[in-house]
Amino acid sequence: MENLLDKIHTPQDLKSLSMDELGLVASQLREYIINMVSSHPGHLGASLGTVELTVALHHVFNTPYDRIIWDVGHQAYGHKIITGRKDLFATNRTYGGLSGFPSMAESEYDAFGTGHSSTSISAALGMAVASVLKGEKNRQHIAVIGDGAMTGGLAFEGLNNAGVSRSNLLVVLNDNGMSIDTSRGALSRYFTRMTASRSYNHFKDSVWDMMGGDRRPYYPQRFISKISGAIKSLISPQAGNLFEALNFRYFGPIDGHDLPTLVAVLQDLRTIQGPKLLHVVTTKGKGLKEAEAAPTLYHAPGRFDVKTGKILPAGIDLSLAPKYQDVFGKTIIELARRNPRIVGITPAMPTGCSLSMMMKKMPERVFDVGIAEQHAVTFSAGLAAEGFVPFCNIYSSFAQRAYDQIIHDVALQKLPVVFCLDRAGLVGEDGATHHGAFDLAFLRPVPGIIVSAPMNERELRNLMYTAQSPENKLPFVIRYPRGRGVVPRWKTPLEIQPVGKGTCLKEGRDTAVVSIGHIGNNALKAVVSAEKTKPEKSFGLYNMIYLKPIDEDLLHEIFKRYKRVVTLEDGIVTGGLGSAVCEFAARHRYTQPIVRLALPDRFVAHGSVADLQKECGIDVEGIAKTLLDD
Amino acid sequence: MENLLDKIHTPQDLKSLSMDELGLVASQLREYIINMVSSHPGHLGASLGTVELTVALHHVFNTPYDRIIWDVGHQAYGHKIITGRKDLFATNRTYGGLSGFPSMAESEYDAFGTGHSSTSISAALGMAVASVLKGEKNRQHIAVIGDGAMTGGLAFEGLNNAGVSRSNLLVVLNDNGMSIDTSRGALSRYFTRMTASRSYNHFKDSVWDMMGGDRRPYYPQRFISKISGAIKSLISPQAGNLFEALNFRYFGPIDGHDLPTLVAVLQDLRTIQGPKLLHVVTTKGKGLKEAEAAPTLYHAPGRFDVKTGKILPAGIDLSLAPKYQDVFGKTIIELARRNPRIVGITPAMPTGCSLSMMMKKMPERVFDVGIAEQHAVTFSAGLAAEGFVPFCNIYSSFAQRAYDQIIHDVALQKLPVVFCLDRAGLVGEDGATHHGAFDLAFLRPVPGIIVSAPMNERELRNLMYTAQSPENKLPFVIRYPRGRGVVPRWKTPLEIQPVGKGTCLKEGRDTAVVSIGHIGNNALKAVVSAEKTKPEKSFGLYNMIYLKPIDEDLLHEIFKRYKRVVTLEDGIVTGGLGSAVCEFAARHRYTQPIVRLALPDRFVAHGSVADLQKECGIDVEGIAKTLLDD
Repeated sequence: MENLLDKIHTPQDLKSLSMDELGLVASQLREYIINMVSSHPGHLGASLGTVELTVALHHVFNTPYDRIIWDVGHQAYGHKIITGRKDLFATNRTYGGLSGFPSMAESEYDAFGTGHSSTSISAALGMAVASVLKGEKNRQHIAVIGDGAMTGGLAFEGLNNAGVSRSNLLVVLNDNGMSIDTSRGALSRYFTRMTASRSYNHFKDSVWDMMGGDRRPYYPQRFISKISGAIKSLISPQAGNLFEALNFRYFGPIDGHDLPTLVAVLQDLRTIQGPKLLHVVTTKGKGLKEAEAAPTLYHAPGRFDVKTGKILPAGIDLSLAPKYQDVFGKTIIELARRNPRIVGITPAMPTGCSLSMMMKKMPERVFDVGIAEQHAVTFSAGLAAEGFVPFCNIYSSFAQRAYDQIIHDVALQKLPVVFCLDRAGLVGEDGATHHGAFDLAFLRPVPGIIVSAPMNERELRNLMYTAQSPENKLPFVIRYPRGRGVVPRWKTPLEIQPVGKGTCLKEGRDTAVVSIGHIGNNALKAVVSAEKTKPEKSFGLYNMIYLKPIDEDLLHEIFKRYKRVVTLEDGIVTGGLGSAVCEFAARHRYTQPIVRLALPDRFVAHGSVADLQKECGIDVEGIAKTLLDD
Repeated sequence: MENLLDKIHTPQDLKSLSMDELGLVASQLREYIINMVSSHPGHLGASLGTVELTVALHHVFNTPYDRIIWDVGHQAYGHKIITGRKDLFATNRTYGGLSGFPSMAESEYDAFGTGHSSTSISAALGMAVASVLKGEKNRQHIAVIGDGAMTGGLAFEGLNNAGVSRSNLLVVLNDNGMSIDTSRGALSRYFTRMTASRSYNHFKDSVWDMMGGDRRPYYPQRFISKISGAIKSLISPQAGNLFEALNFRYFGPIDGHDLPTLVAVLQDLRTIQGPKLLHVVTTKGKGLKEAEAAPTLYHAPGRFDVKTGKILPAGIDLSLAPKYQDVFGKTIIELARRNPRIVGITPAMPTGCSLSMMMKKMPERVFDVGIAEQHAVTFSAGLAAEGFVPFCNIYSSFAQRAYDQIIHDVALQKLPVVFCLDRAGLVGEDGATHHGAFDLAFLRPVPGIIVSAPMNERELRNLMYTAQSPENKLPFVIRYPRGRGVVPRWKTPLEIQPVGKGTCLKEGRDTAVVSIGHIGNNALKAVVSAEKTKPEKSFGLYNMIYLKPIDEDLLHEIFKRYKRVVTLEDGIVTGGLGSAVCEFAARHRYTQPIVRLALPDRFVAHGSVADLQKECGIDVEGIAKTLLDD
């Protein structure tokens, strides 16, 4: 079989292909994605679901002049491959390589950088309005957004505003009933109802019948009103009205794996002015049986066998420490069994944060609220106002989206919501959009909130235990990283972790490292290594555990004892622990040099955590070097 | 006429009243609000629109056991007055007095503290789910939310989640076609369409006809299904489906000033389980002709004449300096005339931020996107990606809601969006929810962003000019306070304000004040006053203008010259200018004492700006005292 995909260097190369050839490109593209991701781990399921859509969009629209914005962006591998990045694709998500998400800096075909959910409609509308202002009447602007991302409030805000604009905006709703986990919420049920209606099953036949049964891709323009009417009349009576209420013209649902239909419908939508929505039904993981059957598992499966689809064991040593997320997942069950006031809340990440474990054991006490971080927090506030202890688990970088709710609905109301911020610090391959770089800096200014970070599993457990104890009356943040801890035998007895108290891990004479969170483990090794290099030196190590309130007694001890202080955190250098220590020193007139080791004041790209720590000088070697550089 | 309102000490006192008596309470309540607000300025229009709804809700529901959450909360004056706070109402919004918004600390009837928009559904759902978990089957949870607030993404996230819950949640949509300015967006048009349909005009008659024309308030339960069906069948075919798509039972629209109907419908809704929405149509400013006619003007009119409704002149000296917002409003027109790439964006605050001025002159270049701060920012990003220079004007405290969008959609994408954050620092009477206390602290950690604050009108103009100049390629924040500047002749020539450069306003010898923004004017007076008190002392004053990048050359000069440094900002003490100066001193090993004057690390309540500045020690006297306290 001819390798047509190799000949697609830009979307221009798709223009002259026949429908059969386009189909061949699509199947080769799917195969290529499966092959590549099997050995170069990344997001799989989402991109497999959008293969036909990708080919159809680039065939029909005039990219990059026409703008395609991929919401979230982990479905855009096919897009990257056919927009000149096929040969680079083996570098996907690696240090210095391609980003796993669309990136304006990487390609003119990536109209907007994405990573977080639900931004595409707003950004595409901004571009569409720009075209109106510039008089570019035929320029097209397309937001491709999943049904999961559609539950984010930002998407709704965008729809509401777009509905009254007279711009060329096409929203493609890529409905696979999934975000990463199964989509929940009323909207998701609504989509299912629309799609499951009898009419959808007959849709294709009816449309083609109407067109004389001829599957030619470019059916005459005069059919379009008939078709859109047909689509609508075929689906259940109320379907479509949600979007029509918002003044969008609604089309669909259509089969997102039926390339000829996709091409035909997109061709015609291209000529319709104003805001319009095409509802496309796809299967996440399409084309790989195992991925279709277990879409959450195959969302980002790691390495797998291309032939069998089986996920390869990651070569995990069973003596390894557990993932922090699993310590969270198991400990909350342990706590919830004792404390009936505990409930769990996640914005669409039950598997990622391991709250799924509690969901299985106590389904009535866990709430997956959809991709809706703002709501997750204010909903938790409502529960806390009635005496419950909500553990609201949000990835650190997504918590940025609930900042106002943390301040206004929780801290100002003095409600003891427990925030467990997973994926804090460097997350590695997901890169700049996903690093939990800002949490320490943006939470420290919030009055009346406790901010903590465990250095290991035991501390995570104890912080969770402390946060839910009746003695705690304040909002309580616990931030911890992606990946594994350091204690294989993690299930230690639960103890109160005294609020605002740090600990001395090692006394020394010359320089003290003042650290917070898991990154302290690097410091532990660095101190040993530095003392080995210069045996005449002696370094101290202090684990603060709490950023707020910070342990001032311990800081006094440190500043009284050492000649120099190095602060260490895996958050941005401005505003977090380092700043707190500088403020303390200034207030108390300590005059020793203070060196702040942290993430630099720029966005850190993707790569392995080890590579990125090195780049930021917070790996073991970097810390040791700083210790020795006095 | 009997004063029945005086006898309403708690909602319990409403229970036994006849419908006529309830009507009397409502009209006396309206009169009381008008009288009080005419002489004790506050929010007027919203509370006048909800008088009947307030009386009906407290008559029908068993508050405080049943929970009422007033979204935003400026419509809750009537609620406050009939829940035991009538005699205190003269202290509304004053220092030490009642809050202008619901406050959990103030009354058990205030089920949730509000101030920012669109939180009520999420919080009420949290409470409703808490009741389910506690087995409180008959407890009711009511969110009262305006049509403006309904456009906020958080409200949609709440609806989406609520639609699949089996809890007792009643959302009352208070539809007056307004937030503060006229509501815009597709949702608003949809509500208008629903309400304007022929059927609504005939609604009341039809319902009462169906019930035999008898206006008895407690019509038999068996009518309810008939009624709700009737309501639905009477309105336009698609109406209601937006909420029904989200699995809510929809009722309405009904006349929100028709007390008997309100009582009757609420009585019946009380018995219906699950999520339900009642669409109530009200008139903002109802009962005061002038307010009905000009709802934006009478949203918070200041003092007015009760008899004529005329707003009293605020005793403004025409030689006074202009409001910062008006300098913004006029300057953006001036700039936009020269630079065709400039566009203006506001999330529902055109009048409050004076972008309304540009809206009148260049309507096609100004976008009011509704209460949707997240969308405002990402939409601006889309415009910037296509070469426009969006001036996105958001009140500082509301910008908290767009934090992720500022980081992820603007800064990470390196898009030169200009953020004009009005109402930065202490806002006075609106209190804790509205102070722009956190902006300096949460923006400084964001990489690649410029953060500035003008000390006067001239600097505001120059910063705006600098931000839109082709030389600027970065996101550019300009934050300035509510109220007036200091330069009556404000229209100075536009000049580039060199990025990252501060200025010396006065040289000195002993202590230097390092200040940012308008609060520097207090420092100016304080320096003079302190030198008068101790003529042997000499103080310097430095206006940084830019927090990021900060002027390190100037800081070196200062630390080389002075014995002591006092930082001054009207933002939270952790993370902003004071922290930046402490970090700088630590990095460069300056050992002078640093005193940070700022807002304290707690939430500051309401009162006049003067009172609050005094409380925080950043008034002239407080600063002078700090200068002399060395």
